[in-house]
Amino acid sequence: MTAAVLCIGTELTRGELLNSNATWLAESLTRIGLEVTSVDCVDDDRARIEACLRRLSAEHRAIVCTGGLGPTTDDITTECAARVAGVELYRDEPSFEQIKERLRRFGRPEMAAANAKQADFPVGSRILPNPNGTAPGFCVKLGEAASYFMPGVPSEMKAMFDSYVAPGLAGLVSESRHQIVLRCFGMPESECNERMAGLEALHGVYVGYRASMPEIEVKLLARGATPEAAQALARRAADDARLRLGDAVYGEGFGSLPEHLGALLAERGRTLAIAESCTGGLAAELMTRTPGSSRYFLGGAVVYANEAKSELLGVPAELITAHGAVSAEVARAMAEGVRQRLGADYGLAFTGIAGPDGGTAEKPVGLVHWAVASAAGTVGKERVFSGDRLVVRRRAVFSGFDTVRRALV
Amino acid sequence: MTAAVLCIGTELTRGELLNSNATWLAESLTRIGLEVTSVDCVDDDRARIEACLRRLSAEHRAIVCTGGLGPTTDDITTECAARVAGVELYRDEPSFEQIKERLRRFGRPEMAAANAKQADFPVGSRILPNPNGTAPGFCVKLGEAASYFMPGVPSEMKAMFDSYVAPGLAGLVSESRHQIVLRCFGMPESECNERMAGLEALHGVYVGYRASMPEIEVKLLARGATPEAAQALARRAADDARLRLGDAVYGEGFGSLPEHLGALLAERGRTLAIAESCTGGLAAELMTRTPGSSRYFLGGAVVYANEAKSELLGVPAELITAHGAVSAEVARAMAEGVRQRLGADYGLAFTGIAGPDGGTAEKPVGLVHWAVASAAGTVGKERVFSGDRLVVRRRAVFSGFDTVRRALV
Repeated sequence: MTAAVLCIGTELTRGELLNSNATWLAESLTRIGLEVTSVDCVDDDRARIEACLRRLSAEHRAIVCTGGLGPTTDDITTECAARVAGVELYRDEPSFEQIKERLRRFGRPEMAAANAKQADFPVGSRILPNPNGTAPGFCVKLGEAASYFMPGVPSEMKAMFDSYVAPGLAGLVSESRHQIVLRCFGMPESECNERMAGLEALHGVYVGYRASMPEIEVKLLARGATPEAAQALARRAADDARLRLGDAVYGEGFGSLPEHLGALLAERGRTLAIAESCTGGLAAELMTRTPGSSRYFLGGAVVYANEAKSELLGVPAELITAHGAVSAEVARAMAEGVRQRLGADYGLAFTGIAGPDGGTAEKPVGLVHWAVASAAGTVGKERVFSGDRLVVRRRAVFSGFDTVRRALV
Repeated sequence: MTAAVLCIGTELTRGELLNSNATWLAESLTRIGLEVTSVDCVDDDRARIEACLRRLSAEHRAIVCTGGLGPTTDDITTECAARVAGVELYRDEPSFEQIKERLRRFGRPEMAAANAKQADFPVGSRILPNPNGTAPGFCVKLGEAASYFMPGVPSEMKAMFDSYVAPGLAGLVSESRHQIVLRCFGMPESECNERMAGLEALHGVYVGYRASMPEIEVKLLARGATPEAAQALARRAADDARLRLGDAVYGEGFGSLPEHLGALLAERGRTLAIAESCTGGLAAELMTRTPGSSRYFLGGAVVYANEAKSELLGVPAELITAHGAVSAEVARAMAEGVRQRLGADYGLAFTGIAGPDGGTAEKPVGLVHWAVASAAGTVGKERVFSGDRLVVRRRAVFSGFDTVRRALV
């Protein structure tokens, strides 16, 4: 029951575009229960596209293909698919009407002729509607392989996959699947691996990891004769995994630590303000990515210069002179200052040396002090993080979020 | 003269990892002058890896392969390469000594036995040193194809490619190459394409695009009999492209707009402070990614709540009541406030509706006001940006940076 992903486009083989479609599709197919063994890209060359499709259709039960459905002369996927299927193309009039209607709506009716080929499909194929763009997709048998063709634009592809491709492919898989994702922070991946040793065999589940620095997602995928059986198996494995990983697991699902912290703050009716030196605005940026974050995030200060620390947060200049800008004392004063100035329940502050320069023997590159101020008092922490400038910043910010999270729960 | 990239690893075919190695290699090979026509991933399966290598070696003059050189039982790339080459493996004692030495240095001498296989190579291969990790790479002929095998860890792979693989492959290409990258902001990709129409044929260069939202990189790759000839051709094409694209081109090379702006500020000895509402810290975060940014970036305020706008920036509460937080007046007051409080040469401010909620008929989602305050006065701008929340934020921030850049030059 193997499956293949094929992405068509010279922009991919020339490395002009990071192929996030391929990763998304490979992950989605794995979740459905297919074993993806090849993920290929080929350039916009007729002979090579046809050779790829012939080879993949001989080796796999399912092929999921993106790209080359556009209106230009480079877009030849549909023709290639028809030739490999050994059938002619036909014009689907209802699809052509929809394309014309869409172009009229966007004020470009003159483009209908150029886009007409997007209404052509191999005889015998099933058309997959595209609510987000002009090019419909299609499904056709190539040899024994159920083969799905979708546009390369990620938003169009993903919506089409979820609505029309995933249900079709799920029918190929006899067993039910259930996946639980545990979200971990604060444990090295090697330790995480070690603690999970044997769990896969013990529970008969598949365990996957995805490092989403500095977090780790642990995926537990269970198979069962019924949805309920798969779900129970995944749950049992997840409960065991949570025991093994302890409080490194902060949640389940796809929300990252900043989202999780935001939801916690909203749930408890608490507010947060952030003061940042070495992290340069990253903590505020991550907290405000989520819509509705204004309910719990009041604001913050990015205080690179010492004068900014005093002016915006009221950190006494003498404190900075006495201990240095990178010190536990200044981190605490920043956290208390931002909390008080913005009237927040929690004040979180970072000061450190992100590098690559500016380190000393006493205060090395990677050293970050952070502090959380609240009605209960102020907690200060410090650590020397490894990694380059951006990695140090990220690790520090997530560590700070984790400290606030632990104060909340 | 076609080339192929092959990435080996079940983590890739399961979609657990975004395959940035593949994109990086495809781009690097294209720059060298090879025509990459296939970029494939295969899982850790002996038969499938060997089938891939056989097929690719029959179709290409060069193969660049990553992954599967680690110490675990899953790591079988070397064995597969030897079988396809039709040769035995041998243990390279100097490599084994280096591996042992490295493990001693990291305090793990007991792992030497497990890592011994990383010193095994196909007979007749050339060893590629790995200064950043334990596993050396190797180069071996598979059929007529020069085939390079490297570790999958990006930092190890990139260093090895640049030092040992690129020079070898460049020898396969008889012509010289020269690439110039133009960095553009503020012109839609379709217009950029239109203005560049015919340039490729006119100058005999290859034109590539990479959208790095919201910037566009235009790559001009020229071939010539000598390095000087290629360089002259690329320069001529780049000068023509600059005329066509006008002041959308802000620079050449690989530094993005925030880096470019930082360099400009440093060069002119000017300082910047930033006040952000809807952009939530993104502008500060981008400005502080570059080491040494403390020379020109003094700090900023992230003022989500109206009280924060008044408290941190001195924006009068009445101004917010009269015009709303999202208004030209408040953007100007924020820019002037942050400039004055932090004593900066330039104050940049953003206020808007990033969405997805909170829009009205009068102030729709995507509306952003930004302003730049300086000794010369305050300039205010506004625009309704399309895209989701994160895209709106990014477009707004780059637009603001562009306004400061234009004020500087």
